[in-house]
Amino acid sequence: MKIAVDAMGGDHAPRNPVHGAVLAASEVESEIVLVGDEPTIRRELEAHGSPAGISIVHAEQVIGMEEGMATGIRRKRQSSIHVGARLLRSGDVDGVVSAGNTGAVMAVTKVIAGTLDGVDRPALAVVLPTQTGRALVLDVGANADPKGRHLVQFGLIGDQLARQLLGIARPRVGLLSIGEEAGKGNDLVRSAHRGLSAQDIEFLGNVEARDLYQGGADVVVCDGFTGNILLKTSEAAVETLRTLMREEFARTIAGKIGGLFARGAFARLRKRVDYEEFGGALLVGVRGLTVISHGRSTPRALGNAIGLVEEYARHDLNSCVETALAGLVTVDPTETASIGVN
Amino acid sequence: MKIAVDAMGGDHAPRNPVHGAVLAASEVESEIVLVGDEPTIRRELEAHGSPAGISIVHAEQVIGMEEGMATGIRRKRQSSIHVGARLLRSGDVDGVVSAGNTGAVMAVTKVIAGTLDGVDRPALAVVLPTQTGRALVLDVGANADPKGRHLVQFGLIGDQLARQLLGIARPRVGLLSIGEEAGKGNDLVRSAHRGLSAQDIEFLGNVEARDLYQGGADVVVCDGFTGNILLKTSEAAVETLRTLMREEFARTIAGKIGGLFARGAFARLRKRVDYEEFGGALLVGVRGLTVISHGRSTPRALGNAIGLVEEYARHDLNSCVETALAGLVTVDPTETASIGVN
Repeated sequence: MKIAVDAMGGDHAPRNPVHGAVLAASEVESEIVLVGDEPTIRRELEAHGSPAGISIVHAEQVIGMEEGMATGIRRKRQSSIHVGARLLRSGDVDGVVSAGNTGAVMAVTKVIAGTLDGVDRPALAVVLPTQTGRALVLDVGANADPKGRHLVQFGLIGDQLARQLLGIARPRVGLLSIGEEAGKGNDLVRSAHRGLSAQDIEFLGNVEARDLYQGGADVVVCDGFTGNILLKTSEAAVETLRTLMREEFARTIAGKIGGLFARGAFARLRKRVDYEEFGGALLVGVRGLTVISHGRSTPRALGNAIGLVEEYARHDLNSCVETALAGLVTVDPTETASIGVN
Repeated sequence: MKIAVDAMGGDHAPRNPVHGAVLAASEVESEIVLVGDEPTIRRELEAHGSPAGISIVHAEQVIGMEEGMATGIRRKRQSSIHVGARLLRSGDVDGVVSAGNTGAVMAVTKVIAGTLDGVDRPALAVVLPTQTGRALVLDVGANADPKGRHLVQFGLIGDQLARQLLGIARPRVGLLSIGEEAGKGNDLVRSAHRGLSAQDIEFLGNVEARDLYQGGADVVVCDGFTGNILLKTSEAAVETLRTLMREEFARTIAGKIGGLFARGAFARLRKRVDYEEFGGALLVGVRGLTVISHGRSTPRALGNAIGLVEEYARHDLNSCVETALAGLVTVDPTETASIGVN
């Protein structure tokens, strides 16, 4: 198996992607292909003793982290993102990891690798730790203004991903909303609720963040704006609690002693909740396998993302998703009036 | 000063509202008026020794926590929520606290007390703890499908509230989005961004949850769906971290010792981040002063909500908001195409 890594993507490229590849090389079975400026990558690799199992494919150009779509996608056809997507399309690699410009990776991959049959809009999916296990959340950022019918597709896609990736026979699929009763939420949620109710999946109806984190759903469906808010709010709230905790621990002798003794517990906890451990978001609905990591990804996070791609590549995700979407039941898309209060 | 408390509102009514009033009676200067079924409330009060400073106003009916708008609002005009709103309108009380059906409290208060001049849609505002202080977030649940112009009003209202309630001379107002650059987000955010940019406020542009929690904004504006997701995700993420932490602490001797020593730190931390400590959400844009508490509110949370109302009532919030909205600058509401990717 071969996995391409965008060596030029992310806030600390090429240093972190190359270092991530080096970390992963000793842990994965796949060959890793670093895509980007060949001389620069070679120098970085040499600093790590040029380990075995890593090769380089040259790419002339780089799309910046904040570059606009027009310049980035249309004018830089030799960017590391483009070259990686072409390797994916041609079957030269089995998957791609990029910590680059999320919008550019999504758009380029969609155009070059193409969307799966039955998919209107690709989505970003993440696996989050819950109190009892793991849950899949999609969309977390690809579609800021989708229609209800897109969320219905996300439900079917999520159902398949949870079967394949989480090994759940009949995943419980929830629709993220404010208030659990049908009718609660916004217009989009009500439209998606009707559509999801008609599908052959274990649809729970509306769920809230609490249900997600308590392990009450295996798949949580939402629009990309809301999903991104959910993800970033979780990170920010946990980070804030940690900072406040450190302050409180440092204030008294007892707290300092407590902090010392609890150090092991915190280290294990960190392994369970850290974004880094989960590597990145899976771009679903496009052909091939693409994981988009955080722009601020550490080498460890990128190494984990490479491992994630290897794990995902063992499943035939694409054809499972296409089969599921072929069974989509369409419903009357009539919108009802807004009620929208929790 | 007089503060009405909906004795029939919330999952544990009348027990918790009455107990909350008893707790608050010894701490606030105001007289507390319990609104609801007189004989039941009297019995509950007697169990607490019928403390001074608490009176009862009878209300025949109760609107259930999950009751629909039609039955609840239109048919139960003698509900504790209706009676409380009429006391507010007539000036018999200076503020109202209810842990009842949020939708019903909002709708009834809007109809009976009326909206402020210049306000199209009332909103729910909460004050959240940040790493450096406090920030005001609105809307957290009143409007699931607002337009950009409503978010612009929320910005002006939030600016005034932060001046009055948080004592900030020129509050920094951010627009909650995914990605900080203008243009990032969904259609609603882009529309609101244009409108907010034209106002005479310290507009930061888009902000993310991280900025909010790190103290990078004094006011964060969003639609009620997104705000409610933000609030509930924060609660759920923190709660999950706590549960996992307890598990980790219990796993080893060192962890158990650490937990014991850290107990004081956790207790202080809890005071800083607990929902209970903050009492509830302020219904802004309607005449008078109404705080809506969580349906699951403990007596302590309800007691704090009463204290909050007393504190808020010292400011002339309503006329400040009306003056601010009179200065609203209207902009061309033309929508631009969706880009919407982070």
